[in-house]
Amino acid sequence: MKEIDYTKEKIDAAIQTLGPAKIDSPIPGIDIGGEYTNFASDSDRILFYQRERYFRHCLEKRIDPVTLELAGPRKKIYFDPKKLRCAIVTCGGLCPGINDVIRSIVLALYHTYGVRHIYGIRYGLQGLIPKYGHEMLELNPSVVANIHEMGGTFLASSRGPQDIEEIVDALERLNIGLFFLIGGDGTLHAAASITDEVARRGEKISIIGIPKTIDNDIFLVSRSFGFDTAVEMAAQAIRSAHTEATGAPNGVGLVKLMGRHSGFIAASAALALKEVNFVLVPEIDLDIEGEHGLLSILRKRLIDRKHAVIVAAEGAGQKYVMDKEVKRDPSGNIKLGDIGKYLRDQIKNYFNRIKMPVNIRYIDPSYIIRSVPANVNDRIFCGFLGQMAVHAGMAGKTGMLVSLWNNRYVHVPLKSAIARRKEIDPNGRLWLSVLESTGQPSLKNPVQTSAEICLQGKKRTLKTTRRSASKRK
Amino acid sequence: MKEIDYTKEKIDAAIQTLGPAKIDSPIPGIDIGGEYTNFASDSDRILFYQRERYFRHCLEKRIDPVTLELAGPRKKIYFDPKKLRCAIVTCGGLCPGINDVIRSIVLALYHTYGVRHIYGIRYGLQGLIPKYGHEMLELNPSVVANIHEMGGTFLASSRGPQDIEEIVDALERLNIGLFFLIGGDGTLHAAASITDEVARRGEKISIIGIPKTIDNDIFLVSRSFGFDTAVEMAAQAIRSAHTEATGAPNGVGLVKLMGRHSGFIAASAALALKEVNFVLVPEIDLDIEGEHGLLSILRKRLIDRKHAVIVAAEGAGQKYVMDKEVKRDPSGNIKLGDIGKYLRDQIKNYFNRIKMPVNIRYIDPSYIIRSVPANVNDRIFCGFLGQMAVHAGMAGKTGMLVSLWNNRYVHVPLKSAIARRKEIDPNGRLWLSVLESTGQPSLKNPVQTSAEICLQGKKRTLKTTRRSASKRK
Amino acid sequence: MKEIDYTKEKIDAAIQTLGPAKIDSPIPGIDIGGEYTNFASDSDRILFYQRERYFRHCLEKRIDPVTLELAGPRKKIYFDPKKLRCAIVTCGGLCPGINDVIRSIVLALYHTYGVRHIYGIRYGLQGLIPKYGHEMLELNPSVVANIHEMGGTFLASSRGPQDIEEIVDALERLNIGLFFLIGGDGTLHAAASITDEVARRGEKISIIGIPKTIDNDIFLVSRSFGFDTAVEMAAQAIRSAHTEATGAPNGVGLVKLMGRHSGFIAASAALALKEVNFVLVPEIDLDIEGEHGLLSILRKRLIDRKHAVIVAAEGAGQKYVMDKEVKRDPSGNIKLGDIGKYLRDQIKNYFNRIKMPVNIRYIDPSYIIRSVPANVNDRIFCGFLGQMAVHAGMAGKTGMLVSLWNNRYVHVPLKSAIARRKEIDPNGRLWLSVLESTGQPSLKNPVQTSAEICLQGKKRTLKTTRRSASKRK
Amino acid sequence: MKEIDYTKEKIDAAIQTLGPAKIDSPIPGIDIGGEYTNFASDSDRILFYQRERYFRHCLEKRIDPVTLELAGPRKKIYFDPKKLRCAIVTCGGLCPGINDVIRSIVLALYHTYGVRHIYGIRYGLQGLIPKYGHEMLELNPSVVANIHEMGGTFLASSRGPQDIEEIVDALERLNIGLFFLIGGDGTLHAAASITDEVARRGEKISIIGIPKTIDNDIFLVSRSFGFDTAVEMAAQAIRSAHTEATGAPNGVGLVKLMGRHSGFIAASAALALKEVNFVLVPEIDLDIEGEHGLLSILRKRLIDRKHAVIVAAEGAGQKYVMDKEVKRDPSGNIKLGDIGKYLRDQIKNYFNRIKMPVNIRYIDPSYIIRSVPANVNDRIFCGFLGQMAVHAGMAGKTGMLVSLWNNRYVHVPLKSAIARRKEIDPNGRLWLSVLESTGQPSLKNPVQTSAEICLQGKKRTLKTTRRSASKRK
Repeated sequence: MKEIDYTKEKIDAAIQTLGPAKIDSPIPGIDIGGEYTNFASDSDRILFYQRERYFRHCLEKRIDPVTLELAGPRKKIYFDPKKLRCAIVTCGGLCPGINDVIRSIVLALYHTYGVRHIYGIRYGLQGLIPKYGHEMLELNPSVVANIHEMGGTFLASSRGPQDIEEIVDALERLNIGLFFLIGGDGTLHAAASITDEVARRGEKISIIGIPKTIDNDIFLVSRSFGFDTAVEMAAQAIRSAHTEATGAPNGVGLVKLMGRHSGFIAASAALALKEVNFVLVPEIDLDIEGEHGLLSILRKRLIDRKHAVIVAAEGAGQKYVMDKEVKRDPSGNIKLGDIGKYLRDQIKNYFNRIKMPVNIRYIDPSYIIRSVPANVNDRIFCGFLGQMAVHAGMAGKTGMLVSLWNNRYVHVPLKSAIARRKEIDPNGRLWLSVLESTGQPSLKNPVQTSAEICLQGKKRTLKTTRRSASKRK
Repeated sequence: MKEIDYTKEKIDAAIQTLGPAKIDSPIPGIDIGGEYTNFASDSDRILFYQRERYFRHCLEKRIDPVTLELAGPRKKIYFDPKKLRCAIVTCGGLCPGINDVIRSIVLALYHTYGVRHIYGIRYGLQGLIPKYGHEMLELNPSVVANIHEMGGTFLASSRGPQDIEEIVDALERLNIGLFFLIGGDGTLHAAASITDEVARRGEKISIIGIPKTIDNDIFLVSRSFGFDTAVEMAAQAIRSAHTEATGAPNGVGLVKLMGRHSGFIAASAALALKEVNFVLVPEIDLDIEGEHGLLSILRKRLIDRKHAVIVAAEGAGQKYVMDKEVKRDPSGNIKLGDIGKYLRDQIKNYFNRIKMPVNIRYIDPSYIIRSVPANVNDRIFCGFLGQMAVHAGMAGKTGMLVSLWNNRYVHVPLKSAIARRKEIDPNGRLWLSVLESTGQPSLKNPVQTSAEICLQGKKRTLKTTRRSASKRK
Repeated sequence: MKEIDYTKEKIDAAIQTLGPAKIDSPIPGIDIGGEYTNFASDSDRILFYQRERYFRHCLEKRIDPVTLELAGPRKKIYFDPKKLRCAIVTCGGLCPGINDVIRSIVLALYHTYGVRHIYGIRYGLQGLIPKYGHEMLELNPSVVANIHEMGGTFLASSRGPQDIEEIVDALERLNIGLFFLIGGDGTLHAAASITDEVARRGEKISIIGIPKTIDNDIFLVSRSFGFDTAVEMAAQAIRSAHTEATGAPNGVGLVKLMGRHSGFIAASAALALKEVNFVLVPEIDLDIEGEHGLLSILRKRLIDRKHAVIVAAEGAGQKYVMDKEVKRDPSGNIKLGDIGKYLRDQIKNYFNRIKMPVNIRYIDPSYIIRSVPANVNDRIFCGFLGQMAVHAGMAGKTGMLVSLWNNRYVHVPLKSAIARRKEIDPNGRLWLSVLESTGQPSLKNPVQTSAEICLQGKKRTLKTTRRSASKRK
Repeated sequence: MKEIDYTKEKIDAAIQTLGPAKIDSPIPGIDIGGEYTNFASDSDRILFYQRERYFRHCLEKRIDPVTLELAGPRKKIYFDPKKLRCAIVTCGGLCPGINDVIRSIVLALYHTYGVRHIYGIRYGLQGLIPKYGHEMLELNPSVVANIHEMGGTFLASSRGPQDIEEIVDALERLNIGLFFLIGGDGTLHAAASITDEVARRGEKISIIGIPKTIDNDIFLVSRSFGFDTAVEMAAQAIRSAHTEATGAPNGVGLVKLMGRHSGFIAASAALALKEVNFVLVPEIDLDIEGEHGLLSILRKRLIDRKHAVIVAAEGAGQKYVMDKEVKRDPSGNIKLGDIGKYLRDQIKNYFNRIKMPVNIRYIDPSYIIRSVPANVNDRIFCGFLGQMAVHAGMAGKTGMLVSLWNNRYVHVPLKSAIARRKEIDPNGRLWLSVLESTGQPSLKNPVQTSAEICLQGKKRTLKTTRRSASKRK
């Protein structure tokens, strides 16, 4: 339900960077023998595309299909667990499940491999830079025993880039062999640069990323941890908006949800209750004014039904609200304009102008969403991600992240993942279901939605099937 | 995370029954023209296997890969929405999300296709049999507006088979064109028989199944609705068991969970908190007595840690508890012995015998688990299942069920789905993660677990990597 | 725990208005005989004060104690259930539990007394004014069966006064004998005026109020429905703020909660987790700048502990933010300035000025708090309130509200309840516990808190108890 | 809503034992002077009864009213915080909120009074007896920071009595001055004996009880911690039973809840949803067979409505199930027969006999209820209880427990509290509301319920009020 289709063109970058199957440095480990089927082999890969037509395409053109390396424990491990020193860092904004990932990494390192030197870097990459003066935490199963009951990150986080050379200096100084970075787009870029710098220096340090993005917008990652919890919490906020909207004459519930570039949270949460009338996402252009604009359609809805619910991803409608001069936050992300407040004010003004009293309730639940503990589904998922990250790291993999792709845990080269962003496919199942559920027209170009098309289909069908139906008698 | 691998042999039955791509009867509908990408085409199929090695296998052997038909709205519809009469029935035990599926079917029929005659059959297939005297319910969006807030089934259900001819008589009498059956294994068998009988009579009635199994054990169905909610609730019961176990000297928390033939709930829920020490499932044999038996290992655990948590699927250990003479319930399911109480008594007796006082707390939460409303994740999923079932039905498909396979909604012929059962793969990722998380040995044959194997690997590795590690200095 | 003490002076107004014990109009009902102890008698009253010293005071001065009439079913009922027509209206903002109260009133009228004409007025008092054109709803057990699963008000609400004469005109026109108003301060004022107008016209219409105030600030009402749920939700928002604060360097979580004139939600929720460092309420003055001001103390806290959580009731610190010229909303409430955003900006500016980077997260969860369904505790409470309101109304009581006072359901004359507002006692148990829990100094006048006083006591005690302690050896 | 009335006779024992106001040993502390209103004084007491008629009774008879001492910080403290060594123990079964009480005691001792030697006794009173070999835990704010997120008891518990002399020996050996016991009936009896033994030895050890009873059945305690959470969880179990009952033909949901001698949980939870048809509690006798017995009434209900929900407290109907020969558990509690399974079997047999098929679902959620973390309401309550216990202990009080009485925190002598048990008043508001809500007749003696009485009242009233009503025209 959170899945999207990629057209062939869209993943050209990925195909180019996915590169050779072995993404790790040469491995000095040794074969432990046997033919245990429960070990994954580097030659065990899954197809990137699962459409039959892609299969036929490869067959005809005699080309190799794009594939991804399966994650899992390897027969050979690269590091000596007795001597290995590992570090874990969490970067960027909060997301449900970070503590579950930390806990899972620590438990797998400690119990499965017997690693005894595990360090938690405090306050993100700041924690590796001496001038900030943050202390490291020693981690073991007892320290992390209950951290999953708490939201947020037990290690604390920070935003903003740090000097790559200083980071690698710190890793060398601390004699770290395996470095886990839990972070989003910016952090994965940093992880790629760290990998390069480590290689340049000829160090034997593995860099493993665990993608953290509450927006679920990282490329080659079907699903990111915390997303399911976020959708659950977002659905509760929408339920509140619906309750408020129905509780007052011409009530309008307006919810702003996370989603800087990809509206997955808004679209998915809107499907949970099917009470939403308009979903605005960054991927689909929108007009506010005009005959087919949001305000005009909203007016009709209120006259018909006396209440309405609008859900907007924070990145939607930026053409209205973004500063001409692009500004960036400490993490280097473009500062978005506040579409939530803009819509609230535009709606107020419009209905004032046409003298139709409305009661608008604006809800911005983002901190409440992102700071809760993971739900059970995410908790299990985070457990796997942590285990897979440890298996990859112990096997000497580097410059990669762990990902779920069509229900399989896989290894993805960092450079492939950061090459583009994952977005809602306007012709895909998710968005069409949103259109069916909300009944909203495409707000920009009033093209036919699935429902409208079907409706047309029905009308045309009527003539024919009337006949065929009459045959039934 | 709830995924399993199928070995080639295991799905032979499926390959044979999946048969030709078109599973529906000849369609008298007409093409509505255009090239809308948001329609699914019957020739749009996905690969059953996604392993690269299967791809290569087909390539070498020049055989067609096994594929599944994609679900979604079709350009041509078979029924005249104005005249179509639809019926929905829910059968068997409760499962979270049934009301969401009913609601989604009604909303899609009503809003997307404009169908106005939708009937809810009360109390399962009984509702179609005159002698029971149950009334039908007329369904429309207003009737189903809030049913998703309630658990269970709004239409009520019943167990046990009804005469197939009487059922088809009723469908004819009521002039039903499209019949949705929400039910488990038994119901899907009935649906297949109804399809055959309908075909025999030459009627134009489509039979669409929506698989309902809280155990998540239906073949060719990656995930069944309600399973995620069930795992969430089961995890809470396990949390209670853990709290009880740690709250008393030598506390043993014992939880019996659903899972007649497949232990997916037990295995998944055990991964949520990682506080479980033993997971017993029907797929893996178990010894209770003896040196490597459960009781002996439990004793060691209690001496070490003073508390333990055991999770048993209801179908586990049946060799100890099932009646010699097989009995069946009204649905035709074999009556299982009560492994939960058996284990409780065996543990009590054993520790009495060895004079080691234990405090055992036995929790059987099944009715509490299955009767809650669906969580947000299942709610969204049920929404899709209902929509897909309606799209399939309106397109004239019959004798099939809607399924999620590797994150794609697909059509599966009823006869393929009922050919076998889905089970945990003892060598797959799910079970190995359970072993890693619990640290439990294989209770029957003390073979090496992944962790033990890795440990061995480590030991052997040490010699070598010590050298390679020394090079790092 | 949500209780407060009233000093003698504070309730003078109440004593004067509580007046004679019988608050109802003369009752033409007849005695049904017997001595059933399960009926309440109008002479059955409870003491307003429960302190022993008040008892002794009355004894010495030979004065009658202030008492309240007990609620409950009466032996005599005033209205003929067969003919009686009842109406229910909900006014003002949302609050958890409104639907539970509606449901309880309907069930008690229908099942306990056999009343068959019950009407729901839509959109607050607007629903009685013809020009708005709102339709009434007929209510019965089946209509209200599941409304408690939804938050908000099933009947919808509106703000703002309506003409009292028009309201009474409508009640006469509809032949209403018993009118239940669920609303806050403004509504209870309106209810009192309606009672007067009904009396002036000599009509036999009973007016019963059920006090609705999420702020829990209505006089002579220990606890208002929805408050417990609101505190639960508020505690979750504070938990989020704490998670955010600990997740970033110098993180400051700032939560604005409901509480226009009384800070009960803020104070109670702060006690739930004991993670809050500053609680600001309207009842206690506060300085932001200056040596003992909030900013200066916050700086010290951040230097010590690296994070802080601040909770502000919306009515706190109005001296900083309220417009010179008082503005009012449609309900006649004074428009408050936004202390939340003001604090956020002041904190940002201050720490910018002193060049100490902070990460401030501002959470305003009010719509999310007030629109959820009632929790179980409130659900039970709302059930009693509805029953008690019906018992009072059927007995012919009028011009009163149902209240909980020291754990007893009582009748309170409307005019007594609206005479003043309930506020936190700065010397009472609730506020002192907040001070003990937060460790915050009185922000305005740095007087000694309980903890500081105790500390002094301890120091002085040390000398003496040292001796006494030495005796112990 | 959980309140009960006591008849005069019922509390004679209490009046006799409440005794003189000062319950503590002579206090060597000194007055710290001043007139701080935020200190409680030992002469500050509240009335036990709050009925006006009791007030008048005392006035006429010139007798002193029964009063209770108010809890809160005292100006004089008895112990030197620098030297004081405190111990906390948790005994008996689990109950939500134990960890909150522990945490609150530790925070108040540490932060408010500066005590630095606080010990957690492990595994109940066993932890003080050398032969068990349990280690103590040193407690401080950092150790208890997050324990409230977990259910159960962080210190673990055990059942059964230990030798009082050995306990006091241990307290002397460990040099404990202040001993907090969190436990139920048995523990409070032990606490009373410990107090006596301490007095006999002339030791200066204060014994403070915090009453723990999920059944809410301790005398002179309005409300016990964890009860609100238990009712919330119980209501969920009832909701499941209702869902199951409505989901099958002639569905019967049967829930067994805690309540050995007092049915408060069953009665309160039944009021939350108003879906329960029969509530069985230990306080009200019940007949199962016979014309007015449960089975016969259940049959009528099923014929009328096709489903039913029954809630039984575990102590209900013991005349049917208790062994002739009384057995006791390690805590000395009488072993109850299993009324839940008995009812299930009786219902099955009865409907088999009369050939009416029913679907019965039996739910026994007790471990799930008692092991969850406290909800927000209980969390705040536990915070106060802990603080009050510490204030009492530091002031040198002993042989007492902290209690909430009519919304005031008070000190109750242990011997008064253990003199009798708190039970539901069959003529009180709580039970009558249960009867009104369920519509169940008194199952033993078919006396008139409130609703029936009212109905009679109505009938007789009709004649008269018809006339008065006609005047209205």
